[in-house]
Amino acid sequence: PCRVPVNHKCNLPAVCFVWQIAMIILFGVFVRYNEESDTRWIEHRRRKNISTNLENDFYYRYPSFQDVHVMIFVGFGFLMTFLKRYSFGGVGFNFLIAAFGIQWALLMQGWFHYLDDDGKIKIGVENLINADFCVAGCLIAYGACLGKVSPVQLMVLTLFGVTLFAVEEYIILELLHAKDPGGSMVIHTFGAYYGLTISWVLYRPMLSQSKHLQGSVYHSDVFAMIGTLFLWMYWPSFNSAIADHGDGQHRAVINTYLALAASVLTTFAISSISQKHGKLDMVHIQNATLAGGVAMGTASEFMITPYGSLIVGFCSSIISTFGYIFLTPFMEKTLKIQDTCGIHNLHAMPGVIGGIVGAITAASASESVYGQEGLINTFDFKEAVANRTANIQGGYQAAGLFVAIAFGLVGGALVGGILKLPIWGDPADANCFDDEVYWEVRKGLQTETR
Amino acid sequence: PCRVPVNHKCNLPAVCFVWQIAMIILFGVFVRYNEESDTRWIEHRRRKNISTNLENDFYYRYPSFQDVHVMIFVGFGFLMTFLKRYSFGGVGFNFLIAAFGIQWALLMQGWFHYLDDDGKIKIGVENLINADFCVAGCLIAYGACLGKVSPVQLMVLTLFGVTLFAVEEYIILELLHAKDPGGSMVIHTFGAYYGLTISWVLYRPMLSQSKHLQGSVYHSDVFAMIGTLFLWMYWPSFNSAIADHGDGQHRAVINTYLALAASVLTTFAISSISQKHGKLDMVHIQNATLAGGVAMGTASEFMITPYGSLIVGFCSSIISTFGYIFLTPFMEKTLKIQDTCGIHNLHAMPGVIGGIVGAITAASASESVYGQEGLINTFDFKEAVANRTANIQGGYQAAGLFVAIAFGLVGGALVGGILKLPIWGDPADANCFDDEVYWEVRKGLQTETR
Amino acid sequence: PCRVPVNHKCNLPAVCFVWQIAMIILFGVFVRYNEESDTRWIEHRRRKNISTNLENDFYYRYPSFQDVHVMIFVGFGFLMTFLKRYSFGGVGFNFLIAAFGIQWALLMQGWFHYLDDDGKIKIGVENLINADFCVAGCLIAYGACLGKVSPVQLMVLTLFGVTLFAVEEYIILELLHAKDPGGSMVIHTFGAYYGLTISWVLYRPMLSQSKHLQGSVYHSDVFAMIGTLFLWMYWPSFNSAIADHGDGQHRAVINTYLALAASVLTTFAISSISQKHGKLDMVHIQNATLAGGVAMGTASEFMITPYGSLIVGFCSSIISTFGYIFLTPFMEKTLKIQDTCGIHNLHAMPGVIGGIVGAITAASASESVYGQEGLINTFDFKEAVANRTANIQGGYQAAGLFVAIAFGLVGGALVGGILKLPIWGDPADANCFDDEVYWEVRKGLQTETR
Repeated sequence: PCRVPVNHKCNLPAVCFVWQIAMIILFGVFVRYNEESDTRWIEHRRRKNISTNLENDFYYRYPSFQDVHVMIFVGFGFLMTFLKRYSFGGVGFNFLIAAFGIQWALLMQGWFHYLDDDGKIKIGVENLINADFCVAGCLIAYGACLGKVSPVQLMVLTLFGVTLFAVEEYIILELLHAKDPGGSMVIHTFGAYYGLTISWVLYRPMLSQSKHLQGSVYHSDVFAMIGTLFLWMYWPSFNSAIADHGDGQHRAVINTYLALAASVLTTFAISSISQKHGKLDMVHIQNATLAGGVAMGTASEFMITPYGSLIVGFCSSIISTFGYIFLTPFMEKTLKIQDTCGIHNLHAMPGVIGGIVGAITAASASESVYGQEGLINTFDFKEAVANRTANIQGGYQAAGLFVAIAFGLVGGALVGGILKLPIWGDPADANCFDDEVYWEVRKGLQTETR
Repeated sequence: PCRVPVNHKCNLPAVCFVWQIAMIILFGVFVRYNEESDTRWIEHRRRKNISTNLENDFYYRYPSFQDVHVMIFVGFGFLMTFLKRYSFGGVGFNFLIAAFGIQWALLMQGWFHYLDDDGKIKIGVENLINADFCVAGCLIAYGACLGKVSPVQLMVLTLFGVTLFAVEEYIILELLHAKDPGGSMVIHTFGAYYGLTISWVLYRPMLSQSKHLQGSVYHSDVFAMIGTLFLWMYWPSFNSAIADHGDGQHRAVINTYLALAASVLTTFAISSISQKHGKLDMVHIQNATLAGGVAMGTASEFMITPYGSLIVGFCSSIISTFGYIFLTPFMEKTLKIQDTCGIHNLHAMPGVIGGIVGAITAASASESVYGQEGLINTFDFKEAVANRTANIQGGYQAAGLFVAIAFGLVGGALVGGILKLPIWGDPADANCFDDEVYWEVRKGLQTETR
Repeated sequence: PCRVPVNHKCNLPAVCFVWQIAMIILFGVFVRYNEESDTRWIEHRRRKNISTNLENDFYYRYPSFQDVHVMIFVGFGFLMTFLKRYSFGGVGFNFLIAAFGIQWALLMQGWFHYLDDDGKIKIGVENLINADFCVAGCLIAYGACLGKVSPVQLMVLTLFGVTLFAVEEYIILELLHAKDPGGSMVIHTFGAYYGLTISWVLYRPMLSQSKHLQGSVYHSDVFAMIGTLFLWMYWPSFNSAIADHGDGQHRAVINTYLALAASVLTTFAISSISQKHGKLDMVHIQNATLAGGVAMGTASEFMITPYGSLIVGFCSSIISTFGYIFLTPFMEKTLKIQDTCGIHNLHAMPGVIGGIVGAITAASASESVYGQEGLINTFDFKEAVANRTANIQGGYQAAGLFVAIAFGLVGGALVGGILKLPIWGDPADANCFDDEVYWEVRKGLQTETR
């Protein structure tokens, strides 16, 4: 019954093979261990007068790395298992493109940020965190396309997505010197607009043919809650993973924790008020409860105060939940954007809020609140930007937000155009949201009654 | 078919909204970053002569915090998904009340323990751990009421539960100066008796009308195992999270690990021996395997010895499993206490055992075992209690247990009375344990056969 | 309908009880806290001139321990839930034997490695990691027997498995002085051949009678992905948990991370190329994506270079996936080895690859790459083996691999013979892969339609 695309058989294996071999060659040419990971660390230690092995930064970043890692693979993966017949594709293709993306990200980010004098990229644990971050943008974009694209298209989406990410990240963080430790702008805003534009280019007018597969079943909703909760719980680690050691990391955790807590109550309130009989909708609970984490990404290290964080969580979840109720149907009907997971509500809008909050809180930062040294440390007003004031920093933050949006829109249009070529083996409209197109699905799908 | 309570529509949103706004206001008035999380940390560091940012306590508490966080949201949440038609409510309402409870706990515990000279509560990572701990008591109480109360009732239960918790914790830890790092008394005993008393007040004589929904289905039992395992695995972190740095934390991990390991074998033994044909019961495996962790909460830091920990796990699981077999039906029929999750067996009895074990091991602590300084460090025999002996400490530990029980019983009766008012939109007897009362549940609940 | 073995009723409880009591007695006689976990640590600290409690090794090993712990209980446990009617047994018996195994491992490994002058085993967090490692070997062996043995047989398998493990580990790591931080040889190769040989001895010619239960259902495959992902994500922690502090641990993480990333792409490629219509097979995705982690276990600390790690992941997953496609059916038909989870493909072959890779990279290690001190540190060329060269070390690594295989084969034959005795209550051929033999399974297994 499933029309399997004719050229699918050779495409996916070919792409995976060729690209993996390309990775091996590029890593062979470019990637080496950094000083903390090299056996010559002991000599380096002596040179730098480091007294014990335990001052290796590994011990302070690694637990954060593992939390972020869980968010990428279990968090995003299981969040996308909610469809009744696309759970394999949700968690499986997430696994595939994340595993490819982190390799490509190590190279792309390496060329932009970690190139050593000898022309080699030197990697350590912090690079692994950044690669996970980078790939998150593509996984967000996948959310908009979930169930409507082939794995090969996803590989292409990821190849270009990671490339674009590395460039915009370089512009925003290095050239504009904006702060964005949790990636409200560079990850969420960029990723969401990238995915939404692709979805807009790939618009399927006859998608209603697979309408019967677009919902969830009882247990697929419970699976999705695994994703939601691991994202929710580890988000403080996400927003603090590459923050400054010391007070910065500490503050990022507290701010994110509070914003997320406020998001939950608000989401329950709006979800209940919007349905007849006041019933709750699992779609909202699975997604909008996370909006506070997204919106806290830019300002996580700033002195936004605990109640400021609560307000950010409060507002972003109101907007996010209303987005699911009103905007998603409107976008599909009027703007011709089919957004399977509602990433516009979970990543685009809260991401933009996060960027704006970051710009405002940066612009209004003062020595009386931060302390003289604290201000310099928090915003890195050193070297090339030693003379920048908080006010001007606010302007650069805002500029960063526009760069992220622009990269998402333009990049998405470009990549969407490429993905529209009829060579990628994407499923027919009637076979969307159906694992049987790409997966062996055993007969007798349900547990038998006895 | 579902009688939706008429006044439900406005209640939940109103409560969530108003309370979240109240939180924002109270946080605005009272809560600030502590020194380790403030940008002025760099000045503080210089004053205190701390050489690197890496000596910020963040790095030593944060991994423990994350483990505890997972226990609260995934552990408790998924443990309560075992019912065939109440998985949304199990994991979803757990999410709601935990997210509310941690905010309220930061305030309540802050007022009692962390109030600075300027009248502000100064928070850091340790407060986040304590807030998670505090909310655990309410989640335990939820276990007794699972499926029989409305979300608004749960919010009320949590509001009062956290308040009572903060008071009894203050009395037990500060006034009585009892030790309870893993909360056998302050968390488990209190939470369980609080929940059981509420359930007793809210007794439903006609609950058998929803008997067909009280069991599990195959996959809901597997979901519940996610909760069980994350609780079981991270329990050593729970019992050591706020223990003393150094040997105390170390010992708490070993003791808890061993008690839990013994619990598993014992539970399998009793479960198998009690059923006809020697078959195992998932209810026992999901719950009684955790009894050792509960029972190790008070004495986790003490020199109870490795084999002592095994004995504690061994005994508590025997009692817990037998509780599920004999006591739960007896309590329902004779005492009119309907205990959905069997928290009497998993938290009340093992919690009391934990309190008793703590009292006995404290009373029998000696300088020959602990060393002179070790004894002082372990029991904090300093300042106001510098002259206390181990023997007397044992008495205070026992007193702490009584305080916990008393707070549970009296508080539960009080709050139960409030929750009995006919204004909370609780489900009819025939609609208990049914997600359809509070959640949009899609038609076609099962994966289709093709 | 299920033939329940007659003598099953008393066996499991008796074994669990007697063995748990034996553990208590043995722990009472032999096990004590080590210096870092004892209240006398403060005196020890002063003696050793350690300035703060935070230099307690606890803080640097504990997060690794928790990751490994999750792999053992959730990773292995959920990976084995894939069968449609044996999910309880998969996760439940995994829980039982792991909880027993870690206790016995603490004793066995303690006697071989941690015996103090006073005849006591002194335990700390590192022992807990090692106990988890040790039990992993038995859980791998369980994979071959999944669904075909009784819980009592599993307890026996674990008792002997842990014993054999402790001996071969002692020979390989202490006597041969081979390096194997992630256990390609001592854990995976040994565990796999141990399990396969047992499965060969217990060959069931009429197993096709339960053929209808050998597959998965849709949601059981999603449950298994939880296991896969937690294993995949935390494998860098596994291979680095007991590696040298400093650069060694750092390098182990990077190498494992990269090998695993390459494994994913390769597995998708081979899985797709091998099926008609290019469809993907969940069995491959659940298992062969992990082959890179297994194959990286021995050489994880070596200077294998980042691209070397990618090549290891690439090759091991090709072999592993082809193993599932061709070897497993061949082994069942021709060699009479029934391997339920395909551990030959996930653990035996990648484990052997790991051992060979370790031997080759060790043999080719040079001072120009490692630095003089780096070479000594990485291979511990100190004390008794101070004069060993990298070349010779390669030979000892290869010898270690043979020891692991030999222990697996001989031990498996022996224990298989014991398990063949008709006293263990194993299920009839027609009842294999069926939870109803050992578990109370509620009627009405599926979520009702309404």
